[in-house]
Amino acid sequence: MTEHVATLLVACPDRKGIVASLAQLLYGHGANILDSDQHSDTIAGQFFQRIRFDLSSLMTDRHTLEVGIRAVGQRFAMDWRLSYGHRTKRVAVFASKQEHCLYDLLVRHRAGELPCEMAMVVSNHRDAEPIAQHFGVPFHHLPVTPETRPQQEAAAIELLERERVDLIVLARYMQILSPDFVARFPSRIINIHHSFLPAFVGANPYRQAFTRGVKLIGATSHYVTSELDQGPIIEQGVIGCSHRDAVEDLVRKGRDVEKRVLAAAVRWHLEDRILVYAGKTVVFD
Amino acid sequence: MTEHVATLLVACPDRKGIVASLAQLLYGHGANILDSDQHSDTIAGQFFQRIRFDLSSLMTDRHTLEVGIRAVGQRFAMDWRLSYGHRTKRVAVFASKQEHCLYDLLVRHRAGELPCEMAMVVSNHRDAEPIAQHFGVPFHHLPVTPETRPQQEAAAIELLERERVDLIVLARYMQILSPDFVARFPSRIINIHHSFLPAFVGANPYRQAFTRGVKLIGATSHYVTSELDQGPIIEQGVIGCSHRDAVEDLVRKGRDVEKRVLAAAVRWHLEDRILVYAGKTVVFD
Amino acid sequence: MTEHVATLLVACPDRKGIVASLAQLLYGHGANILDSDQHSDTIAGQFFQRIRFDLSSLMTDRHTLEVGIRAVGQRFAMDWRLSYGHRTKRVAVFASKQEHCLYDLLVRHRAGELPCEMAMVVSNHRDAEPIAQHFGVPFHHLPVTPETRPQQEAAAIELLERERVDLIVLARYMQILSPDFVARFPSRIINIHHSFLPAFVGANPYRQAFTRGVKLIGATSHYVTSELDQGPIIEQGVIGCSHRDAVEDLVRKGRDVEKRVLAAAVRWHLEDRILVYAGKTVVFD
Amino acid sequence: MTEHVATLLVACPDRKGIVASLAQLLYGHGANILDSDQHSDTIAGQFFQRIRFDLSSLMTDRHTLEVGIRAVGQRFAMDWRLSYGHRTKRVAVFASKQEHCLYDLLVRHRAGELPCEMAMVVSNHRDAEPIAQHFGVPFHHLPVTPETRPQQEAAAIELLERERVDLIVLARYMQILSPDFVARFPSRIINIHHSFLPAFVGANPYRQAFTRGVKLIGATSHYVTSELDQGPIIEQGVIGCSHRDAVEDLVRKGRDVEKRVLAAAVRWHLEDRILVYAGKTVVFD
Repeated sequence: MTEHVATLLVACPDRKGIVASLAQLLYGHGANILDSDQHSDTIAGQFFQRIRFDLSSLMTDRHTLEVGIRAVGQRFAMDWRLSYGHRTKRVAVFASKQEHCLYDLLVRHRAGELPCEMAMVVSNHRDAEPIAQHFGVPFHHLPVTPETRPQQEAAAIELLERERVDLIVLARYMQILSPDFVARFPSRIINIHHSFLPAFVGANPYRQAFTRGVKLIGATSHYVTSELDQGPIIEQGVIGCSHRDAVEDLVRKGRDVEKRVLAAAVRWHLEDRILVYAGKTVVFD
Repeated sequence: MTEHVATLLVACPDRKGIVASLAQLLYGHGANILDSDQHSDTIAGQFFQRIRFDLSSLMTDRHTLEVGIRAVGQRFAMDWRLSYGHRTKRVAVFASKQEHCLYDLLVRHRAGELPCEMAMVVSNHRDAEPIAQHFGVPFHHLPVTPETRPQQEAAAIELLERERVDLIVLARYMQILSPDFVARFPSRIINIHHSFLPAFVGANPYRQAFTRGVKLIGATSHYVTSELDQGPIIEQGVIGCSHRDAVEDLVRKGRDVEKRVLAAAVRWHLEDRILVYAGKTVVFD
Repeated sequence: MTEHVATLLVACPDRKGIVASLAQLLYGHGANILDSDQHSDTIAGQFFQRIRFDLSSLMTDRHTLEVGIRAVGQRFAMDWRLSYGHRTKRVAVFASKQEHCLYDLLVRHRAGELPCEMAMVVSNHRDAEPIAQHFGVPFHHLPVTPETRPQQEAAAIELLERERVDLIVLARYMQILSPDFVARFPSRIINIHHSFLPAFVGANPYRQAFTRGVKLIGATSHYVTSELDQGPIIEQGVIGCSHRDAVEDLVRKGRDVEKRVLAAAVRWHLEDRILVYAGKTVVFD
Repeated sequence: MTEHVATLLVACPDRKGIVASLAQLLYGHGANILDSDQHSDTIAGQFFQRIRFDLSSLMTDRHTLEVGIRAVGQRFAMDWRLSYGHRTKRVAVFASKQEHCLYDLLVRHRAGELPCEMAMVVSNHRDAEPIAQHFGVPFHHLPVTPETRPQQEAAAIELLERERVDLIVLARYMQILSPDFVARFPSRIINIHHSFLPAFVGANPYRQAFTRGVKLIGATSHYVTSELDQGPIIEQGVIGCSHRDAVEDLVRKGRDVEKRVLAAAVRWHLEDRILVYAGKTVVFD
C-alpha cells in the first residue's frame, strides 16, 4: 500500500518560489502529491517542507526524478532527504534491565504501529533475551564495564553496520554512549529521558522530582547528541502526581509516559516526519 | 503586519495537479506562500487546502489574482474562499445569564488573541450590559418569550446585517434559534455545548453526567445547524471528575473547558482555518 | 511488606459517629490506621469509607477484630468488606484476537504494578496461547459459537470457580456474556469499552466516532452488568484526534487509552479502592 | 451553608492513635465529621490530616472544643490550624500590566468559585484600576522603582494589615518582593510562575522554552519564599506546543495554563486544603 509512496524532506533558506518549484517538478514527472506540510521559521529565515507523493504513475523513473530534485535542491541550497516506501527502515533497540519500553515497542511493532523491521535487540544484560525471542527478534548480548566500553561500542558498531541499521532506539538503556559512537549516527539515535527536560537532567530524575515536590512528572524523547540530555527534543508528555506518590509511584506512573513518548518519536522518525534544525526539531505530524 | 496577507481555503474532488496549479498560479503573480496545509480524504476522494500568502510584492493586482484563482477553481471544480488580512471579521457575541464565556472572549479580544472587531454583545437579559460597556462593546438587549421569538430574531437579523457581522458566537446563549435564523448564517454561528458530544445531548448535560457517573466531563464547540447539538464539531475538551464532584462542581470545572474550547473555535474561524465537509470539520491548525 | 496490612471498605447511611466508632475500634485492637479516605454523598445520605490499617501489632487476633467490626457494622447498617494483604487476589484475563490489553496487563503484572496472581488467560482463539506461555500464565482455549455459548460459559464458570478466581478482566474480549454469567460475578468483571461512554455504545465505536467527526476519542473501563455498556464506570480517558485520522488511526490512538484506562481500573479493584453505589463508583484513589 | 463548618488541619510526627483521638474528640463534642483526608509520609515519619466538621449540633461551645483540640495537639506534638466557615478569608491581588490572571480571579470570584472577600487590587501601574472598579474591588496604586521599593513595600504592608488581608496573590506581579516582605506572610503569598518549575527559573521562561525547543510549556503556582521560584509548589499544568509556535504563541497558550493553575492554588488555599512541609505541599483535594 505504501510501496509506491516516497517522502521528501527539505530544509533551506526561505525564499519565494520553493513550494511552486517542488510542486511543479513533481507534477511534471507524474508524481501525485498525497500530503504536504511546510513551516517557515521567520526569525531564522528558514524553510522546511515534507512532501509525500505517489510514484505509481510516474512518467519518468526514480533516477530521473532524483536528478530533478537535485537540480531544484541546488537552486535553493536545500538540505533534502528522499525516502522510498518500499525500503523499510531497520531498527535496533538497546535495552538494559527495565523492560517496559522494550515490550512496548515490540508489541506496537507486532500490531503494525511501527513501519520498520526490528533488526535486533541489544542489551548489556541477558534478561531481555527471552523477550526478543518471543517476538522473533535477534538478540545480541553486549556486556559492558567502564573498562570494556570502547570494545563493546566497537562490537555494537560492527553489528549495526553489518545489519544496516537505520535507527537506534535507547529503550531505557542505562549506559552512556561515547561521543564517537554518537557522532557516527547523527539524528539516528533516539533516547527516552524520564523527566520533562530541561528539568531534572541526569540521574534519578524521579527522585529529584519527588524531592522538589512537583505536581507533574514527565518524559522526553530526543535525539542523542554528545551532551547528556541536551539533544533536540522530539516529544514530551506528563502525568499528574501528588503528595501521595512515593518515588516508586512516580516510577510506575512515569513508565506510562515514557512508553507513549518514546513510541511517538520512533514512529515519527520512521515516517520521515522529523527535521533537526538549530538544536530543535520540526515534527510534521 | 497581517495586512498584506491573504488566506485561500479550497475544497474539491481530489485529482492530480491541484497543489502544483495553485502554487504555480500564486508564484506567477508574485505572491509568496507563507504557509500551506492540505488534507486528502481518500475515502471521500476529497481534497482540502489552506494557503496563506503574502501580497506585498504582488506583480499584478488583487482583481487579476482573483480572476486567476477563479480559472483554476473552475478547472478543478473547487469551492474556494479568499480572505484578506486587512478586512477584519466582525463578531457578535450572544449571551444569557452565564457570564464566563462572554468575559473570556472579551478578555482574550482585549489581549489581542482574537483577530476581529467585537461588533456587539446581544442578550435576552440586561445583566451583560455593564460587561459589554466595560470592554467598550455595543450592547443590544433583545428580550424574548416563546411568543415573541419571530420578532426578536427578525430584530437580531436586522442588527446583524446592518452591522455587517461575519460571525455569531453563542456564548452559553440559552435560547434555541429557529431553523430560518440558522439557515441565514451557514457555518457562521458557533455554539458551545457543555458536554463532549455526542454524549449528553440537550438540556442539563452536567446533571446527566452526574447521574451516569462519568469520570470525565467535557465541552464541544460546533457550528450550529438546524438539528440541536448535531452541527459539525470544531473542538472538544475534557476535564477529570470523581465521586467527590456534585453537580455544581461539574458546572464549575466545566466552565474552564467551555471557555477554552469556545475560544479555540472562534480563533480558528477568524483565522480561516476551518472547512466544513460532510457534517464534519477540517481544522488546519 | 503489605502482608500485615488489611483494607476495610464500608458503605452505610450517613450518621454521626461512624468515623469515630471505626477509628476507636481499630485503635482499641492495636491496629494502626495507615490511610483513610471517606466520602459522603449528601444527596443520597450515604457514607463511604476505605481504611487501610497495619495488623502487625494487633493486641487481639483477626477473628476478634472481625467480630468487633461486625458489631459496629450492625449498629450503622453497614455493607462492609475486609481484605487481608496476605491474600492476593486471583485474576483471569479474557481475550480474543486483539492483543494490546492482554500484553499490557501481563507486562504490568510482571513489573509488579498489579498486586495479584495471574490465574489464567482465557480466549476463544488460540492466538493468545504463546503470549500466556511467555509470561508463564496458564492458558485455556474456550472456543464459542452462538450455539455453544451456554456450554462454553459453563466450562468457564467451572474453571473460574475451581481456580478460585476473584476478578475477571475482559481485555477486549469480543464476546457478550450472558446475564447468568454476569450475575454470578457482581462487581467482579471489568470490561474496557473503546469509547468515552455514554457516547458510542455498542459495536464499532471508532467508526461511529469517525463518522460523527469528534475531536477526541476515548475509552471507558466499567464493571459489567447485564445491560450492554451500562455498568458502573470506573475510569475514562481520551486522546485528541483530527480530520487527519482515518478509522485505523483512531484504532491505533485508542489502544493507548484503552490500555491505560483498563489497567487503572484493575489496579484500583485489586487494591480494594472501589465501591459501587447506585450504578456509579466511588474510587478512593 | 458553610457557616457552621470548621476545618482542622494537622501535621505531626506519625504515631498510633492520632486518627482515633481526633475522631473521638470531635464526636465527644457533638461535631459531625463531614470529610476527612489524611496522609502519612512514611519516609519522613510525618502525619497530615484535614478534617471538615459540622458545628451545628455542637454540645459544648467553640472555646471548649478548642481547648480539647489543644490538649490532643500537645499529646501528639501537632502543628494545627482551625478555620471557621463563617470567617471568610480576605484576599489582595497584586498585578502589573498583564491582566489575564487578574481578570480570571475576579470573574471566578464573581461566579462564586472563590470563597473569599476580594479586599483589594494592588498594582504598580494604573492600568488595573478600571478592572478593579468594574468588579467593585478597592484599587491601590503603589508605584515602585528600585530606589523606592522599601517605602512601597512598607506602604503595602500597612495596607494589608489594616485591611486584615489573609492571602496575597501575585497575579503576574512583575516585581520581586524583598525577603522581609516575604517573611511577614509565610505560606500566605501565592505566585504564578510561567514555566513548569524547576525548568526555566527566572526571567522570560517562554523565550527560554522556545530556545530549548520543548514540546510542552507549563505554569506553576507556588508559595513565595525568599528564594526566587523555589517555594513549595501547589499546582502545575502544561499545554502542548510545536515548532509552529513562536514565542508570542507560547505566551498566548501559556496564559490559559497560568490562569487555571493559579486559580486552583488560590481556591485550595481558601478552602484550607494545603499544608506545607519540607519545602513541599500536601494538597487535600
